[in-house]
Amino acid sequence: MKVEQISREDIEKVVKNRLARNQENNQIIDERVEKIVNNVRNDGDQAVYQYIKQLDGVELDDYKVSQEEIDYSFTQVDESLIQILKEAKENIVNYHQLQKEQSWYTNHQQGVWLGQQVRPIERVGVYVPGGKAAYPSTVLMNILPAKVAGVEQVIATTPVQRDGSVNPTTIVAASMAGADEILKIGGAHGIATLAYGTENVSSVHKIVGPGNAYVARAKKYVFGDVGIDLIAGPSEVCVVADDEANAKFVAADLLAQAEHDELASAVAVTTSEQLADEIKNEVERQKKNLKRQDILQQSIYNEGSIYVVSDLDVAFEFVNELAPEHLELQVRDPFEQLEKVKNAGAIFLGDYSPEPLGDYFAGPNHTLPTSGTAKFSSPLGVYDFMKKSSVIYYNEQALSGVRRQIEQFADEEGLDAHKESVRIRFE
Amino acid sequence: MKVEQISREDIEKVVKNRLARNQENNQIIDERVEKIVNNVRNDGDQAVYQYIKQLDGVELDDYKVSQEEIDYSFTQVDESLIQILKEAKENIVNYHQLQKEQSWYTNHQQGVWLGQQVRPIERVGVYVPGGKAAYPSTVLMNILPAKVAGVEQVIATTPVQRDGSVNPTTIVAASMAGADEILKIGGAHGIATLAYGTENVSSVHKIVGPGNAYVARAKKYVFGDVGIDLIAGPSEVCVVADDEANAKFVAADLLAQAEHDELASAVAVTTSEQLADEIKNEVERQKKNLKRQDILQQSIYNEGSIYVVSDLDVAFEFVNELAPEHLELQVRDPFEQLEKVKNAGAIFLGDYSPEPLGDYFAGPNHTLPTSGTAKFSSPLGVYDFMKKSSVIYYNEQALSGVRRQIEQFADEEGLDAHKESVRIRFE
Repeated sequence: MKVEQISREDIEKVVKNRLARNQENNQIIDERVEKIVNNVRNDGDQAVYQYIKQLDGVELDDYKVSQEEIDYSFTQVDESLIQILKEAKENIVNYHQLQKEQSWYTNHQQGVWLGQQVRPIERVGVYVPGGKAAYPSTVLMNILPAKVAGVEQVIATTPVQRDGSVNPTTIVAASMAGADEILKIGGAHGIATLAYGTENVSSVHKIVGPGNAYVARAKKYVFGDVGIDLIAGPSEVCVVADDEANAKFVAADLLAQAEHDELASAVAVTTSEQLADEIKNEVERQKKNLKRQDILQQSIYNEGSIYVVSDLDVAFEFVNELAPEHLELQVRDPFEQLEKVKNAGAIFLGDYSPEPLGDYFAGPNHTLPTSGTAKFSSPLGVYDFMKKSSVIYYNEQALSGVRRQIEQFADEEGLDAHKESVRIRFE
Repeated sequence: MKVEQISREDIEKVVKNRLARNQENNQIIDERVEKIVNNVRNDGDQAVYQYIKQLDGVELDDYKVSQEEIDYSFTQVDESLIQILKEAKENIVNYHQLQKEQSWYTNHQQGVWLGQQVRPIERVGVYVPGGKAAYPSTVLMNILPAKVAGVEQVIATTPVQRDGSVNPTTIVAASMAGADEILKIGGAHGIATLAYGTENVSSVHKIVGPGNAYVARAKKYVFGDVGIDLIAGPSEVCVVADDEANAKFVAADLLAQAEHDELASAVAVTTSEQLADEIKNEVERQKKNLKRQDILQQSIYNEGSIYVVSDLDVAFEFVNELAPEHLELQVRDPFEQLEKVKNAGAIFLGDYSPEPLGDYFAGPNHTLPTSGTAKFSSPLGVYDFMKKSSVIYYNEQALSGVRRQIEQFADEEGLDAHKESVRIRFE
């Protein structure tokens, strides 16, 4: 793992280089995705079943997960895991309920009411990645906020395995989270099914959830016709460590991030050169005992870095420029330092809040902005599943009091029918 | 103007046909936009000045509006208009301040803090359309919410006229709203300048504001590298009118919407066949005296419709399927009916709340979701200029209490370094 000294002046360039690595040419994928989406949009279920055969390698009679499959899945999942999923669900629901916004109205002036009506989106699609692997945490984190928001219909879709089944843990988690329908449609054809509907699936208004490059590009392609969450890049952690931090903990957290995939980005920023070396050695030592050696080899050596900076202020400048998905503050008085963080997806405070705590259990969402997008976007939340309408009421007298201003404004913009619509009310 | 009887069963098809009209093939525009954006991204200011010369037809020495130009603009704008802009600004700021979210933290369990930190985006770009025309309301509606959110740097950009100037009213409104910089760069090159920056402009983190097809496609193209607001389609109004509504008012409001452009959509839904005919006649009568005849001719006859339905419940089903940008309720007891509205950008209650009141003056934002996107998105607001970070703190004892669950979860997802990052803390 590289150790590098950087100063304030280097920050912009270092971060730019880090983020540039993630860019890839998507043109070939884009063309394929466009074709798949348009075929599903035009031909509906016929196209869906054909792509499942062609791309997933299985001929299905019905892509909907049946009640029998759901019941059977519950018999296949360990009772202790179901118990843990229940606890995780409770934590996630409790946190997300605090995000729920209320409609408000104000009547600050005689004859005038203004307001903001907040309503759930009616139908939402949740993409769940995986074929063989199950990601029950992803299922909970994407479906539960929609349900807390009050979404009427949540349709989950996930790739089918070659034997025609879906991992039972995925089905159990989706069912526990309250999915109203579970589909066995992966990839771009899954996104197209959600966005435009077919003979047997109602189109949704918004699609969330992570997926591979095909899924990501398909989401970007249908954006505008439906809402989407952010397009997720490789996962990232940045650990800020001062001279009292525990190198063993920091190293373990870097490795936890790095095991996600070859492009996962694990960096530490520390004020202590000695700690930097200790972290480096700890990473080497701990890595030996881990399973995903091939992935770790690449992500740690290509994407991992330990940066040494002069003081914590420079460290936070680096953090804010990087805008990491996950940020850990393994420093003295982390609550004191929190105010310095402007841009990050989720912030983990202190020595006993490792990132996996947030992945699985604590309650806040684990779907977070990556690749610097935390500069302008937020964790997935209940607010992603609700939308607002403005409300305006003026009575006759109140409108009369401002008609001159509106008429002049309309004149200025050259719109005489706008002017007329006010004037005519006082004819 | 067409009058059409529709029943509950027709709603889905009627709305689908209305929305399908808006779809156009953007491929040629897409290719041009991609080239412009990439050239600006690679060559910076040199490319920007070259496109200004090529596309706007003027050779500029400096695309930044200078302090002298700002001062001069204030001498060119009528004092009474400046006064109205001040009043409008005050109303807009007052409404939007009610949207400002606060950070929150919760400590419901010993040793556990969870929270949501809310912070402004640091740098935002606002696109202002127009060459000859000035849209001071658009300037205020896009810049003020960013300033209320606490955005540090707001950069406005707008097309330059052939004489090298920008409409003084636009400059005055931008300056009053608090723009930190005003650029004379229109079109896709303006969006590229904001998204990627140049030698003389810092890249922004989010771009908002309406524009022509090039601007809209450029925004979609840079989305992901920066945040964007929704891509705006043609403007729309839907007036719900019962048998007591005033046909003169309804007609005037339809015409006000229709004068925006040829594709603007003005529809009324009424429970009264007689009122439908009266509205139709009033539209004919009032139209004669208006200026924008060519536009009205097209938008009223191609896009305008009056739908007659059996009762208000069917009317609201239609509304919720259409999800109009602007909705007017010219019905008895509009406050009683409000609850039936699920999908709309802005809702205007009663006979004396014509849509231009919201365009210019009342305070709520006039940048609203169009083309049915109110099903999943919201008016532009302060929330578009702030973003959230989750905060998680567990102390040693609290983590110890849940370590078994996290370790099993990690096992289930096959991530042993995740498990290790918790286990190692209790070694």
